[in-house]
Formats: sequence, C-alpha cells, structure tokens
Amino acid sequence: MRMRQVVSTFSLAILTVALAIGGGTTVSAETKSIDGPEYDEKGRLVRPENYREWINIGTGIGMVYGPLRDQPGGGQAFTNVFVNPSSYRAFLTSGVWPDRTMFVLEIRHSATVNNSKTGNNGRFQGEVMGIEAHVKDEARFEKGGWAFFNLSMRERSGAMIPTSASCYSCHETNAAVDNTFVQFYPELRDVAKKHGTFKNVPEVF
Amino acid sequence: MRMRQVVSTFSLAILTVALAIGGGTTVSAETKSIDGPEYDEKGRLVRPENYREWINIGTGIGMVYGPLRDQPGGGQAFTNVFVNPSSYRAFLTSGVWPDRTMFVLEIRHSATVNNSKTGNNGRFQGEVMGIEAHVKDEARFEKGGWAFFNLSMRERSGAMIPTSASCYSCHETNAAVDNTFVQFYPELRDVAKKHGTFKNVPEVF
Repeated sequence: MRMRQVVSTFSLAILTVALAIGGGTTVSAETKSIDGPEYDEKGRLVRPENYREWINIGTGIGMVYGPLRDQPGGGQAFTNVFVNPSSYRAFLTSGVWPDRTMFVLEIRHSATVNNSKTGNNGRFQGEVMGIEAHVKDEARFEKGGWAFFNLSMRERSGAMIPTSASCYSCHETNAAVDNTFVQFYPELRDVAKKHGTFKNVPEVF
Repeated sequence: MRMRQVVSTFSLAILTVALAIGGGTTVSAETKSIDGPEYDEKGRLVRPENYREWINIGTGIGMVYGPLRDQPGGGQAFTNVFVNPSSYRAFLTSGVWPDRTMFVLEIRHSATVNNSKTGNNGRFQGEVMGIEAHVKDEARFEKGGWAFFNLSMRERSGAMIPTSASCYSCHETNAAVDNTFVQFYPELRDVAKKHGTFKNVPEVF
C-alpha cells in the first residue's frame, strides 16, 4: 500500500514533466537538451538557480582573460566551469554538444592557507567575482549557434555580449571542440579524441 | 497514448528503486542518503562510477597533504571535492551531513598554459594522480561515524585507511563542520554559518 503511494506520487511528477515538455516545442532528447538556456521576456538569459548542481567539467586558476584575471590585492582567480547535465551526458556518448547546451563560468577569488606549521601554501576558493554563460542555441544565434552572456549573482538575468567582442573570435579560432575549450576539461578531452571531434588547435598551453 | 507509455516506463523504474530500497534496511530520506557509500563483499568501498556527476563543492590547488601535494616535475596538484547529491541538498537545508554521506577527493596534475602572446600563465587540470573517499556511516565506523578510503581508477573498490592515520585526528581537530573542511567550500561555508553548525577552528588559512 505504501509502495503504491510512492509510485503514484512519482508518476504524477513524471506526468508533470511530460506535460511541461509537451506544452512547448517538440523536443528530441538526442539533439536538444531539456535543461538548457531559458530567457526572460526581454531575451535576457536567466541565471539557473541550481547551476552549482550542474556538472563541473573543469576548474582552473589564472585562466580568465580580461580584467578579472588577477584579483585585487594579488593572486590568481579560480574559474569553475559547469555544464547542464543532459548535454554533459550527450557529450560523453558522442563528443558533440547538442543544441541548447549551456555553460556557466563562475569566477571566484582565491585565498591561501599559508600554514607555517604544516608548510601548506595551497589556495582555496573565496567569494564569486563574476559569472558568465556560453550558450548554444541554433534557432537564436549566428556564429555556429553560440552566444556569450554576462550574468550576476544579484540579477535574475543577464544581457548578451555583442558578437564583436573578442571572446567570439578567440573561441572560434582556439577552442578544440565546437567553440568550447575542451582542451582544458580533462575528462572530456579523451572523450572528444575518441570520437574524432577534437580539433588540432594552436598550442596555447 | 505516447504519454501513457512514458509514465509506465518511469513507474517501472521507480518501482525498481522502491524495491531495491525495501530489500535493505529501513531508509529515512531525512537522515540517510540513498546515493551514498556501497561496499563489496570484503567491506571495501566501491568507487562510484558516476562520481563526476556528483556535486563539486570545492576545487583547490596545492591543498593535498602528504606525498601527492607537489607533482613530479614541479607544480601544485589540483583537488576536486565531490559529494553525493542527496547529502549536498540535505546540507543546504540544515548545515548538517546526513548519515551515509560520501565525499570523493580527486587529485589531478596541473598543467600551465604559458602563452607568451596573451600573457596567460594560468593552470588547468591534467590526469588523475590519486583518488580518496571520506564516508560517514554510523552503523559501520567509530570516530563520529567517519572513515577514509583509498580508491583508484584501476580498481573497482578500495581499502579503508586505518584509524591511526593522521587524516582522522587532523579532520577531527581542524575541520569546521563534523570532520569536514567546510571552511574551504565557499558555498557551504555560508550555509553552515547560517545554521550555526560552523565550528570556530584554529586559523589554518
């Protein structure tokens, strides 16, 4: 009896999801993500509330280009790169980013331990300095369907970065897989190489 | 008709999960995770196949204690800390780790970009150097229910680290929340402080 209740509750949840999907455009699980970008009425990209539960595909330090590379007071900033889970799983099986893939780049201060007793001088993560997004949405954007957005932790949504910005041309030229810097994402490098989607890019590292 | 098929398939999946849970001990969603540690017949901890899809709560560099702190050839190693999703969500709402919480520590080489053209000298992640786990399982372990395990990418399971090892006493003394170094996990620091579970530990950073 109790199990029957559990099943009913979950069925209702699934039914809700199915209805939600059915209410929009036709979605094919193979080629479009269902947890990708959402926009507000002004076409601004909505910051996903739960992006920290997305898949972290790579964290680096000192990898930001532009004014946020070095934090005030010295020390390099950390960059955490998250991708929506369904696109991550699609990439693992194909080496290709499906339409409606979304990356969130979280830039954080770094702080140092500097423990004289243990000799540890490592660095760990502090507060958020900035947050950006990179979105593939073929129905909306040129440049291979990709667009960059500025987001913030204070606002619900953020504006698109104009296509004249250097990030577009740099990603197009130097990124190993479809405008994305898969050369810096250790697990995905091997996946792309296995599937033959890893482009030989100029040695930037 | 098609929706009905979808619902039936998912119901079957849920039923399977319910039966799997029902077959073991009684599980309460509030106090025990359902995606936590699994052991083999010898009591060794099984490496979760999908730990990279767990929640990354903090990545640092040079934060390893012991022989893996510095990688061969120089340069500090990265440490990625993942936790099972249901325990992460429980922590967000309570500031407390439920029983059957599991951390995976992935230690990776770091490599540098050293791009003379752009001036980028940041570091990104390379291959896995080591993998360890920290498990809370009150029915199995002393020391507040926590135990450490050595894992590897080559073997399905790994052995428990003896409780005489320094990691136990160091975590017990210096960790901000229940044997875990929440002081290094930026999002969780604030959660623990809000819920009053953040312990004033000696300043190690």
